[in-house]
Order: sequence, then C-alpha cells, then structure tokens
Amino acid sequence: MRMRKKSWAIPFLNEHNELVINEPNIFKGKWNEKLKRSVIHLEIGTGKGDYIKSMSQMYIEDGWIGIEKETNVAAVAAKKLCENPIENRLLIAKDAKDILEWFDDGEIDIIHLNFSDPWPKSSNKKRRLSHKNFIDLYSKILKEDGKIIMKSDNSGLFEYTIIEFTHNGYEIEEISVDYRRNTHDEDAITEYEAKFIDLNQPIYRVVFKKIGE
Amino acid sequence: MRMRKKSWAIPFLNEHNELVINEPNIFKGKWNEKLKRSVIHLEIGTGKGDYIKSMSQMYIEDGWIGIEKETNVAAVAAKKLCENPIENRLLIAKDAKDILEWFDDGEIDIIHLNFSDPWPKSSNKKRRLSHKNFIDLYSKILKEDGKIIMKSDNSGLFEYTIIEFTHNGYEIEEISVDYRRNTHDEDAITEYEAKFIDLNQPIYRVVFKKIGE
Repeated sequence: MRMRKKSWAIPFLNEHNELVINEPNIFKGKWNEKLKRSVIHLEIGTGKGDYIKSMSQMYIEDGWIGIEKETNVAAVAAKKLCENPIENRLLIAKDAKDILEWFDDGEIDIIHLNFSDPWPKSSNKKRRLSHKNFIDLYSKILKEDGKIIMKSDNSGLFEYTIIEFTHNGYEIEEISVDYRRNTHDEDAITEYEAKFIDLNQPIYRVVFKKIGE
Repeated sequence: MRMRKKSWAIPFLNEHNELVINEPNIFKGKWNEKLKRSVIHLEIGTGKGDYIKSMSQMYIEDGWIGIEKETNVAAVAAKKLCENPIENRLLIAKDAKDILEWFDDGEIDIIHLNFSDPWPKSSNKKRRLSHKNFIDLYSKILKEDGKIIMKSDNSGLFEYTIIEFTHNGYEIEEISVDYRRNTHDEDAITEYEAKFIDLNQPIYRVVFKKIGE
C-alpha cells in the first residue's frame, strides 16, 4: 500500500516502542514470553492496522504481531493501535523478507495474509507474498500443523496462491470463493474489505495447513 | 438434470447402437480399439450433449465417451450427436456408479465434470460426483498422471470439490475462480454455460492431476 510521505511517521514509530518493535531480533524465540500468550498470530502486510486491531480484541487470549514495511502506513496502524493500548499486540515496521532473523523455527501458529498486493505482472511475481521464496520462510517459522489464512479480492493472486502453497508443502483445509455469502462473525471485516463487499465483488479466502514436503 | 418423460427416448437410444453403447462392459479394456483413438476423454453427467459434441469435433484425434444416467436427457444428447455422425464419440445412458464394470484400470486419460448437480443438502452429499466414493472410482480407471477437469457455476460444489480431490490423491494443476474473464478458445462454451456468463456469474474451473495417496 503506497501513501504520501508523513513527516510524523518515523518519529511516531520510534516514540512508541511499547507497541512498535524496533529490533525484533532481540525477541527471537521469546515472543510467547514478550506477549504473555501461548498462541501467536502474525499478519504480514498489516496495512493501516484495522484487521489486527479488531482481531486482537476479539481473540484477546492470543498474541498478535503485525508486519508492515511501508513506514508511512505502519505509522497509521501504530496510531490506531495506540488509541486502545492492549498488551497482546505488537507491530514491526520492517520488510517481511527478514522474518527468519526475528522468529525462531516453529514459533508462529498462524500467518495471516490479507489483501496483499497482487503484483499482477509476471515479472514482479517474486514480490508476491505467496511466492515460493516467501512460503519457504513461512514454513520455517510456522509450528508443525501451523496455518496460513489468506484473503483477497484479487482472483489472479488467489489462484496463484492456491497453486504455490499446494505445490510447496501445504494442504487446503478450507476454501471459499465467495466468503461473505455467509456470515462469519469469527472474522473481522475491515473498511478496505467492506468496499469490495459493497461493490458485490467476491472475497476469496483459503486456509492452508503445513504438511511438509 | 431432470426433464419431462419422452416416449421416444428409450426406443431412440436402442435404435442407435452405433453411438449409444448398451452393454459397455463388453468393451472393458478395449475402448482405444473401439474408438480408434489413443487418448480417451470421459464426460460424466453429459447432459444434453453440447459439450461432448463441440469438444469431440474440436479434438477429433481424441476419443470421447459421454455418460448420462437420465435416459430422457441422454436421448436428447444422442439425437444431437446423430445429426453429425463422427466415429470418435460414444454415449452410455447409464449410472456412472458402475464405471468399474465398463472401464479397465488406467484406461481413461481425462475425466470431465461439467456443471454437475451440486446436491446442496449435506444429507445428499454422497450423490455429488466429487464425493470421495466417486473419486475412488475415478482413480481406478484413470491413467497414472490422469486428469480431472471440473467446471461449475456453483461456489459450494466447487469448494467441496477442491477439498475432496486434494485430500484424496490429487493435486491442483490449474485453478480459476473466474474462468471466462479470459478467452479460452480451447474449451467449448455450451448454451447452459453461456446463460451464467450472460448473468455475469463467475465460472469456476479446476484441473486435478492424479498423484496417488
């Protein structure tokens, strides 16, 4: 997600280190302790933070970590989460390509990929968060039987994601090609998602379970 | 597909045994010879025959067999195929539950499931052509690396099919949640399918490859 540069963004992120973790490598292997929770969710590409904000309140007994590499966007998320400080959520305003430096093998229970950038051009496919290179990173930090939950409005990215994960050590546990045709009180709808629902566009969702190669 | 009873249906099917195979068990293990083709496609639930009619003309070097259990519907298909008799296609107006009596192990290259009845009630799921019981039959008659190509307008059946096949010895080779957003000259559009396209409803399609358990 691109956004105009905000002069307050980096200072704000630096000032709120109760929420924004500047050196995540320090907590490698210790996130359960840091968050005081036994189950850890990781949202990669957390955007403006609406999803992690709602979900961390709804699932208060779990720990939540959001990663967003665009500092101008991460700062908006940080501001939002600061409005209602609760101890079970943290932000990392860095590029997810480095997750192996921050998380130990098997440290994460569930990874969420919400409305990731589809990078539609084939020449950009390595940037997609469901490219095999990323999947291999996820497989390291995920627990045995760990899960990936992906939602998208983009048919091309969804199809690509299905192929990539099922050919690289994951099986499909749940799939929906029109997730909002039924009510799902267990899952937060962000403003961003609501726009697609208002336009009657289907929301695609898939849950993968790690099975190894 | 249900249809009003046609008094001419059964006599017509019986009269056209150059096309309609009354005792398919006779040809078990000999379909290549019977059709004079090395690649055999099987369409299960062939309906009024529009798909097999177009495809068998488009892929004249392959053999095509359509199965339709409703004799009133199969008779419509038979009539249509008789208008333009070509040697690479046959019909079986019987229930596909008996396919193991008609086809030898590994005798079929590709199975097509087009717009199958979704049987939406859970109590009817054993009737769905993508129920595990059917998948086990397909696995027997399909070649190693054989394929299943499924198309549907029904989101629930599509989702069910993905889970059933990927949990029972198949991997996804291709998937589309909106197949007609791109042009596919290699695949016939039947009148039935065209109705959904006109209504702007997505067509779902998946290609599974047999990988064994």
